[in-house]
Amino acid sequence: MELFSIGVDLGGTNLRAATYTPDCGLQNRRSVRTRLQDGPAAVAEDICCLTQDAKATRDSTASCLGVCVAAPGPLELPLGRFHQPPNLPGWDGFELLQALESRLDIPVFLDNDANVAALAECHLGSGKELALDNLNMLTLGTGVGHGIISGGRIVRGANGLAGEAGHVSVQPDGELCNCGNHGCLEVYASARAIRREALRLAEQGAPSLARLLKEQPEATAGDFYSLAVSGDADAQSIFDRAGRAIGICIASLINTFNPALVVIAGGVSDAWPLLSPKIFEELQHRSYIYRLTQPGSRFQQHTIVQKATLGADAGLTGAALYPFVYGK
Amino acid sequence: MELFSIGVDLGGTNLRAATYTPDCGLQNRRSVRTRLQDGPAAVAEDICCLTQDAKATRDSTASCLGVCVAAPGPLELPLGRFHQPPNLPGWDGFELLQALESRLDIPVFLDNDANVAALAECHLGSGKELALDNLNMLTLGTGVGHGIISGGRIVRGANGLAGEAGHVSVQPDGELCNCGNHGCLEVYASARAIRREALRLAEQGAPSLARLLKEQPEATAGDFYSLAVSGDADAQSIFDRAGRAIGICIASLINTFNPALVVIAGGVSDAWPLLSPKIFEELQHRSYIYRLTQPGSRFQQHTIVQKATLGADAGLTGAALYPFVYGK
Repeated sequence: MELFSIGVDLGGTNLRAATYTPDCGLQNRRSVRTRLQDGPAAVAEDICCLTQDAKATRDSTASCLGVCVAAPGPLELPLGRFHQPPNLPGWDGFELLQALESRLDIPVFLDNDANVAALAECHLGSGKELALDNLNMLTLGTGVGHGIISGGRIVRGANGLAGEAGHVSVQPDGELCNCGNHGCLEVYASARAIRREALRLAEQGAPSLARLLKEQPEATAGDFYSLAVSGDADAQSIFDRAGRAIGICIASLINTFNPALVVIAGGVSDAWPLLSPKIFEELQHRSYIYRLTQPGSRFQQHTIVQKATLGADAGLTGAALYPFVYGK
Repeated sequence: MELFSIGVDLGGTNLRAATYTPDCGLQNRRSVRTRLQDGPAAVAEDICCLTQDAKATRDSTASCLGVCVAAPGPLELPLGRFHQPPNLPGWDGFELLQALESRLDIPVFLDNDANVAALAECHLGSGKELALDNLNMLTLGTGVGHGIISGGRIVRGANGLAGEAGHVSVQPDGELCNCGNHGCLEVYASARAIRREALRLAEQGAPSLARLLKEQPEATAGDFYSLAVSGDADAQSIFDRAGRAIGICIASLINTFNPALVVIAGGVSDAWPLLSPKIFEELQHRSYIYRLTQPGSRFQQHTIVQKATLGADAGLTGAALYPFVYGK
C-alpha cells in the first residue's frame, strides 16, 4: 500500500499545506491566510480543514502516516504549547497539539519550524547530497531560526527549546535585541537587522544608502545586497558586519557540537558571496576544528559550511517528511 | 554472574585505575606517574599493565565488561587518535585505542575526559539526584573541559570533538587564548586565568593582591578566593569577571541545547558562592529559557545551574561506569 503524509507550514501570514510521498515529493498544495485576528482556535480549525482536504485528494488505497505542523516558537515539546510567540500574538499558552489531536483521526506531529526545516535539509537537501546526518541550520529571515540534527533526528533539548542560536550573544555588550538580551546574532544578521543598519548608515551620511532609501523607502536586504555587489563600500560594510556575527556564532556551534555540516538558509543567505569571506575569516581563528586542520595536520575533517539547498519550501517539506521519520 | 568494569584516568601527571561494580563503586585503586618522557607507547604499556592488575584483583567467577580510558583531548573518535593534545606532548597522531585493543583481551573504550566526567555526573551525580538525563558540564580546572549528555549518552559530534565550550568566544575582541582565538571562556574562568588576572591587578597596584603574591608567589585560585571572601574588593572583581564569562557561556549553551541541567566542576567551582550571583545575573537576561520563566509566565521549566556533586573522582568514575552504559 502506498504511504503518504501531510505537511502544514503555519506562518504568521500564510497557512500552507501539501501531501507528500517519497517518490513524488510535495503535491496538492493549498494556501490560505492565517486568520490571526480570529484567535488560535480558528486557525486550528483551518489546519484541520486543510488536513482533511489534503487527505481527501488521495484515494482510499493509500495509507496516511499522519500530519505534521511546522510552527514558529517558542513551542514547548512534547506538550505542544506556545509561550509568548512573537509571530503568533495571542497564542501564549495555547496547546495546538491537543487541539488538533482531538479533531483529527490520523497521527498528529508538531514541531518548531526551524527544526523541521533542518530535518528536511538533512534528509532531502545538502545532508542527503553529502551523505551526512549531523548538521546545524541557521535560517536568516526576518528573525533567525536554528535547527540541530544529530543522527538524522532533531535535537529538541529538555523542553523542545533547543535551537535558539539567534539569541546567542555574539557581542555581549552589543545592541539590545527585542528579546531583552544584548548583541544577539539576530541583531546583526536578520533581514530586519540588515535594513536597520542601512538606515543607521544613511542617517550618518552614507550617500548611496541615503539615495537608495529615498528612492525605495521600503528597500530590503536584497536591495542593499545589489548595491553592495555593485561595489558600494557602505553597503558592503553591512554584510561584513553580518558575516562576522554569523562567523562568531557558527564557531561557537562548531566548538560545542562538532557538526559535520552547517547550512545557512533564509533570504539573507542570498548574500552568501559577500557574507562567506567574513564567516570563514572568523572560523579560521575561532573554530577549534578549523585550527586543527591547518596545513600539514593529520586531521582533515572540516566542518562544511555552505548555503542550504532547499529554498523557501524547507519548512513545508520538512513537515511533510516528518511522519516518515518519526511515525510508525 | 557478577559484572565489573575497569576505569583508567589518563592525566598529564598521573595514571589512575580502579575496578567498579554498581553495588560497590570504585575499588582496588592504583596510581602511577604518567611516563610522558618515554613516549605514548610506554604509557599505553602502563595502561595495559594497570588494566591486567585490576582485572586480576577479581576472582574468575566475575565477568569483566571491559576497560575505559578517559584521556585529555583533542581526541578524534571513534578512531581514538590524538591531535596535538596540549597535556600530552608528543602524542600527536597516536592511536591509543588501537594500541590498547591489540594488547588486551577485553573490550576497550576510549573517550575524552570531560565527556566521561559528564557521563558520571549524569548517572551517579546531580543527574541521578534530580532524575535528569540531559546535562552540560563545565570543568573549570587548569583549562576548561566541557561534556554534553543527552538521553543519558555522550554527544560526541561528527568527529568526537563536541564539547569545547572552553573555546567559545565570550568576548569576541577579548584577550588572546593559547588556542589562537580571542576571548575564549578559558581566558576568563580557568584556574590559570584567575591567577593571571590576580597578577595583572597586583601589577596595576591592587595592594592586597600584591601583598598576597609577595608572601605566596605560587598562590592559586583558592588563595585568591579566600582573600575575596574576606571582603577584598580587588579579589572579588576577579571572580565577578569569571562569573560573568561563565554566565555568558552557559546562556549560549542553554539557548542552543536547552539542557535540563548545567553543572560546574573543577577547582574554580569551589568559588561558587562568589561566581553564582554573576552567573545568574547574565542568565536572567541572556537565556531564552530564563526569560520565558519570568513571574506570571506559564512556563516554569528552568534549566537548573549548580555545582557538580562528584568531585575529583568524576573522570575515573565515569571511565569505570562507561562499559556499563556502552558495553553489551
